Amino acid sequence: MSLNTFGHLFRVTTWGESHGPALGATVDGVPPGIAVDEAMLQVWMDQRKPGQNKYTTQRREADAVRILSGVFEGKTTGTSVQLMIENTDQRSKDYGDIAEKFRPGHADITYFQKYGIRDYRGGGRSSARETAARVAAGGLARAALAALAPKVEIQGYMVQMGRSKADPARYDMAQVGQNPFWCPDAEMAAQWADELDALRKSGNSVGAVIEVVARGVPAGLGAPIYGKLDTDLAAAMMSINAVKGVEIGEGMAAAELTGEENADEIFLGNDGQPVYSSNHAGGILGGISTGQEVVVRFAVKPTSSILRPRQTITKAGEATEIITKGRHDPCVGIRAVPVGEAMMACVLLDHLLLHRGQVGDAGGRIG
Amino acid sequence: MSLNTFGHLFRVTTWGESHGPALGATVDGVPPGIAVDEAMLQVWMDQRKPGQNKYTTQRREADAVRILSGVFEGKTTGTSVQLMIENTDQRSKDYGDIAEKFRPGHADITYFQKYGIRDYRGGGRSSARETAARVAAGGLARAALAALAPKVEIQGYMVQMGRSKADPARYDMAQVGQNPFWCPDAEMAAQWADELDALRKSGNSVGAVIEVVARGVPAGLGAPIYGKLDTDLAAAMMSINAVKGVEIGEGMAAAELTGEENADEIFLGNDGQPVYSSNHAGGILGGISTGQEVVVRFAVKPTSSILRPRQTITKAGEATEIITKGRHDPCVGIRAVPVGEAMMACVLLDHLLLHRGQVGDAGGRIG
Amino acid sequence: MSLNTFGHLFRVTTWGESHGPALGATVDGVPPGIAVDEAMLQVWMDQRKPGQNKYTTQRREADAVRILSGVFEGKTTGTSVQLMIENTDQRSKDYGDIAEKFRPGHADITYFQKYGIRDYRGGGRSSARETAARVAAGGLARAALAALAPKVEIQGYMVQMGRSKADPARYDMAQVGQNPFWCPDAEMAAQWADELDALRKSGNSVGAVIEVVARGVPAGLGAPIYGKLDTDLAAAMMSINAVKGVEIGEGMAAAELTGEENADEIFLGNDGQPVYSSNHAGGILGGISTGQEVVVRFAVKPTSSILRPRQTITKAGEATEIITKGRHDPCVGIRAVPVGEAMMACVLLDHLLLHRGQVGDAGGRIG
Amino acid sequence: MSLNTFGHLFRVTTWGESHGPALGATVDGVPPGIAVDEAMLQVWMDQRKPGQNKYTTQRREADAVRILSGVFEGKTTGTSVQLMIENTDQRSKDYGDIAEKFRPGHADITYFQKYGIRDYRGGGRSSARETAARVAAGGLARAALAALAPKVEIQGYMVQMGRSKADPARYDMAQVGQNPFWCPDAEMAAQWADELDALRKSGNSVGAVIEVVARGVPAGLGAPIYGKLDTDLAAAMMSINAVKGVEIGEGMAAAELTGEENADEIFLGNDGQPVYSSNHAGGILGGISTGQEVVVRFAVKPTSSILRPRQTITKAGEATEIITKGRHDPCVGIRAVPVGEAMMACVLLDHLLLHRGQVGDAGGRIG
Repeated sequence: MSLNTFGHLFRVTTWGESHGPALGATVDGVPPGIAVDEAMLQVWMDQRKPGQNKYTTQRREADAVRILSGVFEGKTTGTSVQLMIENTDQRSKDYGDIAEKFRPGHADITYFQKYGIRDYRGGGRSSARETAARVAAGGLARAALAALAPKVEIQGYMVQMGRSKADPARYDMAQVGQNPFWCPDAEMAAQWADELDALRKSGNSVGAVIEVVARGVPAGLGAPIYGKLDTDLAAAMMSINAVKGVEIGEGMAAAELTGEENADEIFLGNDGQPVYSSNHAGGILGGISTGQEVVVRFAVKPTSSILRPRQTITKAGEATEIITKGRHDPCVGIRAVPVGEAMMACVLLDHLLLHRGQVGDAGGRIG
Repeated sequence: MSLNTFGHLFRVTTWGESHGPALGATVDGVPPGIAVDEAMLQVWMDQRKPGQNKYTTQRREADAVRILSGVFEGKTTGTSVQLMIENTDQRSKDYGDIAEKFRPGHADITYFQKYGIRDYRGGGRSSARETAARVAAGGLARAALAALAPKVEIQGYMVQMGRSKADPARYDMAQVGQNPFWCPDAEMAAQWADELDALRKSGNSVGAVIEVVARGVPAGLGAPIYGKLDTDLAAAMMSINAVKGVEIGEGMAAAELTGEENADEIFLGNDGQPVYSSNHAGGILGGISTGQEVVVRFAVKPTSSILRPRQTITKAGEATEIITKGRHDPCVGIRAVPVGEAMMACVLLDHLLLHRGQVGDAGGRIG
Repeated sequence: MSLNTFGHLFRVTTWGESHGPALGATVDGVPPGIAVDEAMLQVWMDQRKPGQNKYTTQRREADAVRILSGVFEGKTTGTSVQLMIENTDQRSKDYGDIAEKFRPGHADITYFQKYGIRDYRGGGRSSARETAARVAAGGLARAALAALAPKVEIQGYMVQMGRSKADPARYDMAQVGQNPFWCPDAEMAAQWADELDALRKSGNSVGAVIEVVARGVPAGLGAPIYGKLDTDLAAAMMSINAVKGVEIGEGMAAAELTGEENADEIFLGNDGQPVYSSNHAGGILGGISTGQEVVVRFAVKPTSSILRPRQTITKAGEATEIITKGRHDPCVGIRAVPVGEAMMACVLLDHLLLHRGQVGDAGGRIG
Repeated sequence: MSLNTFGHLFRVTTWGESHGPALGATVDGVPPGIAVDEAMLQVWMDQRKPGQNKYTTQRREADAVRILSGVFEGKTTGTSVQLMIENTDQRSKDYGDIAEKFRPGHADITYFQKYGIRDYRGGGRSSARETAARVAAGGLARAALAALAPKVEIQGYMVQMGRSKADPARYDMAQVGQNPFWCPDAEMAAQWADELDALRKSGNSVGAVIEVVARGVPAGLGAPIYGKLDTDLAAAMMSINAVKGVEIGEGMAAAELTGEENADEIFLGNDGQPVYSSNHAGGILGGISTGQEVVVRFAVKPTSSILRPRQTITKAGEATEIITKGRHDPCVGIRAVPVGEAMMACVLLDHLLLHRGQVGDAGGRIG
C-alpha cells in the first residue's frame, strides 16, 4: 500500500524532495548482524552523485549519507535503518521563474492536477534526486548480499545512447568504470562523448538504454505468479524516474523468435547441475531464477529540461513558452546506471529473504 | 507480501492449478453497490477461453465463472468476492510421460529447484491457465469502473507476431473483434493467419506484441515514486505468463529520441484544460496520468511447448530429449490480449480507489 | 491493506457470507512440502461446527472443508491454498422478517451505514460463520507447525462464563475435551451447564473468557515494535467476532502490580539456558517470545441475538421492537475456543516464517 | 509486512533507538493540502516529553520535532513526511555496567536471542523512547483529522494506578491537564501523588490503566472482518511498549454480562438518526463505528527498571544480580497517555482514508 515503499520483506521507503533540507530511505526488514558503515555506502553514492564530469548536472552535492538508526557497533541490529542525505546546494532561486509554468515532459502538471500542489523547487518529490536514497538503500542491500549470498555480483552499464548502440562484440567489463558513460565498449564511449558534447551545446538532451546483470544468483528466487522475480524487477526499474520500458532477457525481441529459437535447452554440467545452451530467458523462467545471469534492460527517456523553447501553459490556464534553465543532465541515463544496480540489489535481497522465509531448505536438488 | 496477490486497495489473489479441480480469484477491496453478475463476467471469460479457433489450444473448458461471495441481490456488498472457475477438461494423462523431464523454456525446473515439487500436470500453478482468474477479476474491475469512472474504455490488440508488425496507418479498431488475432490491421491479420498456419504445421510457435490502451482515464491517477501508475502497469503486465518486456508510450524507443522530440508540448483546449501535442509519454508523466490515452505494450515470448525435439534433463539428473505434446497455443500472445485488458482494468480501478482515499477532491484545477 | 486478510508472510484471506453458497480461506505463503489433506483439517472443523451439543446453535452444517488448490500428491506446493466450505443449511427464511430491522448489538446497522447494503441473511459477512474459514486455515498452519516447529502445542479452553470463573487450582488439561465448554475445571463445567440451561430457557445469553496457551514456542519470535508477537496476537483475537478485550500474560491485571512483583526473574536452567521464576509476561518480552508458554486471553461478549424483546429502529427510520429468532448460541464463547486456537496457530507460523526470512540463524545463544 | 510500520493507507514507519543520534517517523499516505508545521506537532511532543514533573524520567530531551519532507509552504504535499527528533541527552555511560546482564522484564534477553545483538544503550530499539515518534506522527494525523473530520476529538486519561481506580462519578475532563497523571478525578490524582511518591522512594514502580476516547467519529469506519476498527485499535495499543491488555467498550467485563444487558438498544434521535441507550460496545459494532464515542482502554505494566536487586543471567550464561539504575519512570503509564491518543488519531485517520477510498459516498442513510 505504501506508495513510497518498495519491497516485500526488505522494504525501502524513501522520502524527501529535490530542494528540501534532506532526503533519505527508511529501510525495514534488514537482516541483523550485517557489517555496514557510512563509508561502505558512500562508495555507491559517489557513483551517482552529480557533477562528476561534464556530462552530468553541475549541481554540487556531497551526497554524504548518514546512518541514523539500525546499526550498532558496525553491525545492523535487525530494526529499521534510517539513511539520511542532506541537501546542501539547493539554489532554488534558479527555479523561481517557472513556479507558474508547467515544464513539458515533467510531472509538474500531473502532480498539480493530482495533489493541488505545485512544488516548483526542482520538481520537488518528482525529481530524480530521489534516486540518491535508492542508491544508499541499495548499498545496504549489497552489504547484506555480501554476507548472505557472497557469489552475487551486480553490474550495470549503458548499452545505447540515442540511436548509437554499444557492440557486444567489443564488450570489456573492465572498461565500465573507465569512461563517463559506464560503457563496456570503449569505442562507443568515445563516440558518445562527441555526440553528447554536440547535444549539450545545442541545449538538447537524449535518451539511453541501461543493462543490469546479476551473476551468481542462486536458482530458486522468485515465485510463479505475482511475486515473480521479473515482475519485481520490472516494477523496480519502471519506478525509476524517466524510465519508459523494461526488458528481461530477450525482452521485446522475444516477440520475434520462434519457440525453437527462444527456449533455452538444458544440459548437465560437470557438477551434475543444469547448464543452459543460451540465456534468452534472462535468467528467469516462470518468475523464478535459473541460476544463470539475471539480465534486465531499461530505457531512460531524454531529460525534459532543455534549453530550447517549448510550448506550455500556466497554472492560471494561460498559454506560454518555456525554456528550462537550471543545471540538468543532457543524458540522465548515465546516472541511472548506479540506480539500476541499486534496484537490482534490493530486489535480489528481498527475494532471498522471502525464499528463506517461505521455503527454507525445502527446495529440490537435481540428481 | 502476498506472492499471489496483485493490487493495493483493489486486491486480487488468485489460486488454482492447471489440472486441479478449480481455480479462481479472491478479490478484496471491491467498492460496494456495484451491479455485477456472472453473465457480465462471462463475456470477458469467453474472449480468453481456449478452443475458440484453430490458433488456440484445443483444450475444452467452459470457463464458467461462479460468484461465491461478496455479491447480494445483484450488487457488491463491499466484502471479499470469490470468483471460481471449475476445471472440466483436465486430461492430465497427456502430461504423464513428462513427469520426470523438465520442459525447456518452462518453469518446471525452477519450480522444482525452488519448492522441491514437480507438478507435472500441465505446469501446475505456472500454467497460463491462471490467467482465467485474472480475466474474471478484470471483469469485476470493469464493472466498478463503469460505475465510478464511466468514461474509461479499455482496448487491447495484437500489433506484432514474429517479425510481422501491424501498420498503424491501417488501424481500424472496429476490426479488432473481427479476426482471431484481435488485430486492428485486417491486412496483417490475414498475413498472420498464413504465417501461423505454417508454423503450427511445422510444430513450432511464435511470439507477439500486445498493446493495451485506456481512454477516458482522468488526470491525476498514480503517484510520483513507487506507487507510480506506470510501475504498477509494468508489474501487472510482466506478471502475466511468458511476458518478457513492457513499454509505456514510446517505451524502449524513448532512448532514441532527443528531449525536444520526446517531451509532449502542452496547449490549452477549448475547455481551458490542457491538451498535448503528442503522446510520447503514453499518458503518464512522473507516474501520474495526464488524461491522455494510457498506452502499454508488452512482448509475449513464443510458447515453449513445441512438437520439435529439444535437449533437456530429468529430475534424476540424466540428459534426455523431449517433445512436448499436449494441446498448446502456437502463439500464446493471442489469448494474452484479454488478459492484458483485465490487468489494465485492475490497475486503473486500484489507482482510482487509492486516489479517492488519499486525495479525495484536493486535486488542482488549471485556470 | 487487504481488509479481509490476516498475516504477513502466511496470509489468510477469508471470503463468504453466512447464507451464501460457500465460504472459505485463500491462504498464501504456505511453505512447500507440508503433508496435509482434507481429513487432517476436518478434525479441527468438527470442533467448531455447530450443533455438537445443546449449548450451540442447532444449524446443521457438515462444515466439510475441501482443498481446491495448492496441494498435490498430499503435500503443499508452495502456492496459494484454497479451502472451501459449502453452506448446506442456509434456511434464510428464518431471517426474512428482520430484513428491515437492525438487531441491537449486531453489525446490521453499522454495515448498512458503511456500505449501503443490508444483507439480512444471518448477518451476511458479519456472521461468526466466517470463523469456520479461520479454523480451516488454522488447521493448515498447524500442519506446517508440526513440520517446522514440532514442539509447539496449542491449547485453548474457557476460563470464565458470565461471573463464574474456573479455578486454576482445579485445572486438569485432560478435562478440556470432556465437557461441552472446553473447560479444564470439571467442577466449573458442571456448574456452567446448569447456568447455561437456565439462561437458554430464559431466552438470554452470556459472555465468556477464553484462554489460549502455546507451549514449545522457541524464543525469538516477534519484533520489538509494530511487528510484535503480542500486537499480532491482540489483532488476531480482536478480529474474531464478538471479542471485546485481549490480554497477554497478566493482561489488565498488570496495572495492579509493582515492578518488583511483575518482572519475571531469570535463572539458569540445567541446560545452561534461561528459565524464569514466573510468567507474568505471558511468554513475550518486548514483543518477542521468551520460550515460555505464550498465554493469551480474550473476552467474548454475550450473543446479541436473544429471544427477548429489544428496542430498535428500521432502515426507513421508524422505532420498533425486535425479538431475534433463528438458531443461536446462548454462549458464543464456547465455539470461540477452536477459533482462538486457530488464530494462535496462524500467528505463530507467520512469525516463524518471518523470523526465518529476516533473521535466519543469526540469533544469539546464551553461554 | 513492514515490522516497523503501522497502518494501511496512512502508514507510519518509525526508526531510531534510545541512544542513537536521532529517531523519527516516516509517514506515507498523508493527504495533500493539510496545514501543518513543526509548532503544531510540538504541542503534542511536549505532553509526552520526559522530565515534565517528578513522576517521569529525569532524562533531559527537548524532543524537538523537525519536518524534513512532505510539507511545502505550510501544507502537506501528498508525499512521504519525515519527522525527525534528535536525541540530545544520551548519557549512555549510565548503562555501561549492564552491557552483559539481561534486565528482567525487559526485551534485552529476547532481543539478543532473536537478533544476536545486545544494544545495551537504554534498550536500543526496544526503549519506550520510540513512542516520541508515534506522538509526532499522531500530531500529523490530528492535523489531517482537523481538516477532514473536524468533529473528531480525542482524549486520553489515566483511570487506574496500581490498585487505585479513578471514580467515574467524579470525572471532570477539565481536570485532565491539571495534574501530572492526566486524571479526570482530582481526588484520585492527589491520592496517586502520595502513592507514587512512596513507591519511587522505595525504588519500586507500578502499572496503570489508560482510557482513550474519541468523540465525533462518524458512523461507518472500519470493516467487518480483519480490517475491523477494533482490531486495528487493539493492535495499535498493544504495540505500545509495556502494554499487556486492551479493551474496547466493556472489554473483559463483557464476559460477565448477559445479552440483554450488553446489547445497546437503538432509538431515533431528534434528527431521525440512531441514538443508543448505552455504549457497552465502545462505539464499535461488528468492526465498524456506530457514531458513538469510541472507547479503548489499555493496561501498562510497571516499569521493569527498578532500584531493587533482581536475579538474572549474563550473555555468557552466568547467574547474577542486577539493580537497574539510570533515570526511569516509576509509572510509565503516565507518559503512555499522549501515546495512546496518538495511536487513536492514526487509526481513525487511516480508517477515514480507507473508507473514502473503498466506499466513497456509497454508505446508507437511515430514513
